[in-house]
Amino acid sequence: MRPFGSLADLRAACRDLPAGDAAAAAAVAARDAVLTKPAGSLGRLEEVVAWLARWQGRTPPQLEQVEMLVFAGNHGVTAQGVSAYPPAVTGQMVANFAAGGAAINQLARTAGAHLRVLPLALDRPTADFTAAPAMGEGEFLEAVAAGHDAVPPTADLVCLGEMGIGNTTAASALAAALFGGGGTRWAGRGTGVDDAGLERKRSAIDRALARHAACLADPLACAAAFGGRELAAILGAALAARRHRIPVLLDGFVSTAAAAPLARLAPGALDHVLAAHVSAEAGHRLLLAELGLRPLLDLGMRLGEGSGAAVAVLLLRAALACHTGMATFAQAGVAEKSDG
Amino acid sequence: MRPFGSLADLRAACRDLPAGDAAAAAAVAARDAVLTKPAGSLGRLEEVVAWLARWQGRTPPQLEQVEMLVFAGNHGVTAQGVSAYPPAVTGQMVANFAAGGAAINQLARTAGAHLRVLPLALDRPTADFTAAPAMGEGEFLEAVAAGHDAVPPTADLVCLGEMGIGNTTAASALAAALFGGGGTRWAGRGTGVDDAGLERKRSAIDRALARHAACLADPLACAAAFGGRELAAILGAALAARRHRIPVLLDGFVSTAAAAPLARLAPGALDHVLAAHVSAEAGHRLLLAELGLRPLLDLGMRLGEGSGAAVAVLLLRAALACHTGMATFAQAGVAEKSDG
Repeated sequence: MRPFGSLADLRAACRDLPAGDAAAAAAVAARDAVLTKPAGSLGRLEEVVAWLARWQGRTPPQLEQVEMLVFAGNHGVTAQGVSAYPPAVTGQMVANFAAGGAAINQLARTAGAHLRVLPLALDRPTADFTAAPAMGEGEFLEAVAAGHDAVPPTADLVCLGEMGIGNTTAASALAAALFGGGGTRWAGRGTGVDDAGLERKRSAIDRALARHAACLADPLACAAAFGGRELAAILGAALAARRHRIPVLLDGFVSTAAAAPLARLAPGALDHVLAAHVSAEAGHRLLLAELGLRPLLDLGMRLGEGSGAAVAVLLLRAALACHTGMATFAQAGVAEKSDG
Repeated sequence: MRPFGSLADLRAACRDLPAGDAAAAAAVAARDAVLTKPAGSLGRLEEVVAWLARWQGRTPPQLEQVEMLVFAGNHGVTAQGVSAYPPAVTGQMVANFAAGGAAINQLARTAGAHLRVLPLALDRPTADFTAAPAMGEGEFLEAVAAGHDAVPPTADLVCLGEMGIGNTTAASALAAALFGGGGTRWAGRGTGVDDAGLERKRSAIDRALARHAACLADPLACAAAFGGRELAAILGAALAARRHRIPVLLDGFVSTAAAAPLARLAPGALDHVLAAHVSAEAGHRLLLAELGLRPLLDLGMRLGEGSGAAVAVLLLRAALACHTGMATFAQAGVAEKSDG
């Protein structure tokens, strides 16, 4: 039932990706040039509509079915004292999502996004990656498949978020493995560890990098060794979206790190992805720069859950409303530019 | 009927401003501390809710009546060849606003804001300020009054935008007059002038600064000499909002320059104001820095019309939804932080 029977299958799929629809993007740009505004004056609001069209293969694009997928996982590395919260909070927050009490519930509703929360074997945390790979190949592929299968092929946009106590440590270790540098470069305070906690986090990352040195050249092996199930699922979902030609909004540091192995496997593998925001978590700005992703928002958010992605959906709706609703110069009887 | 009979009256009003409600802001912060998220993890979404509460004097704040005021004016300085569009476009765009075809129509609807467009004597452009003050005292006070009177005392939030061919030249000249530096420091390409047009714009600003050197120490005299009616109206509306204790979202470069004389007259006069975004117009980032305003958005927009402010309203709605809708740690049975 798994979409990928082996790491080799998955690797092959990650390297066989459809291109975007350049004609759809060009049609958006052509209409933008005659709408009643100076050319380019809506800035990134124009850019995102062309991006939606390119990956939906449709002009104008639409945002009828916006899917917010939030994956949750538990992490053995919490044994190293890397988080300000106890691991039980992962499950408690999943219950809070179900009850409608979390930030993402309010934000998804405000953004008109359908929220789906997928807890992944919370009763079986991944192994402590300072001592062993977080996941074996089978566990990893299962989590990738969970994410892959969660993407509705009919979605107009997929937003990817996560919850998992300890997962900024996993994301930092994965980023370090993929892009170089150690705990000092990549670790931040996550949910709010103190100085001693930050030091434990850096140390855990550095020890893990040394332990798994043999796999650093293989991005998927890194995702299995350092990541968590929710990170693997995000990788699978980002891949599935590309195969279905659905644009993706990534949330914060953890989501971005989760998708990063795709970019290391194939240049352009994240062309269908937009970074919703840059989080206040220390490594995110750096990671986005490594990936060449320019975030839409910079609001000092660092919650995860898909929260930044949900806020960015509002910008996409505003952008699309302009593109589809505005009059052209000819329709409105407005004079066009007279010089330079 | 004018709220201010003289520049001296207006100056006195600008220096007699109510403070915000610190208790309302503190109540927001106290609730934020117990909602199911790490403290501060919603970043500026938390900050803006406290700001709304402070200036509405209400906890929680509300966004039921969001008023988008777009003032339009014509500028004699267009005779200097400073714009890429002919002056007739101001009136044509006002007609486009009335017909619902402009960007701000789509954005105000998306943001749930009530749009009101106020054209100000479009058939009587201000004087070419390279040759004479743009407005005499009476004309200036009339425009300030138009803005002042346009603010509904019951509004929960006022957004201020503008339309006026030539008004980035007026805004640049006003910014230069208030904060120093000449045309080279402050002029940008506005709706898209070419290199020669930019040179004409810089030259017009420098000549005007020399001509009106005697008034540079008086912020209101500068607003009359360099501004336009729509800029004066924005000043009046920002002042009225403060007197009614209504928070204000400023749109782009022109709106910010229009309100800037208030800050030069009294420290803290713009504490009730948030910069919705930083525009791509060259001088805006600089002007925001001079005013100590941190923009919410940075999307490369440079349209005016209130467009950036309307997009920022979406962020405020997202922020408020979190604040009012989220569960507390106690309600959700989620464990609180266990260390540092």
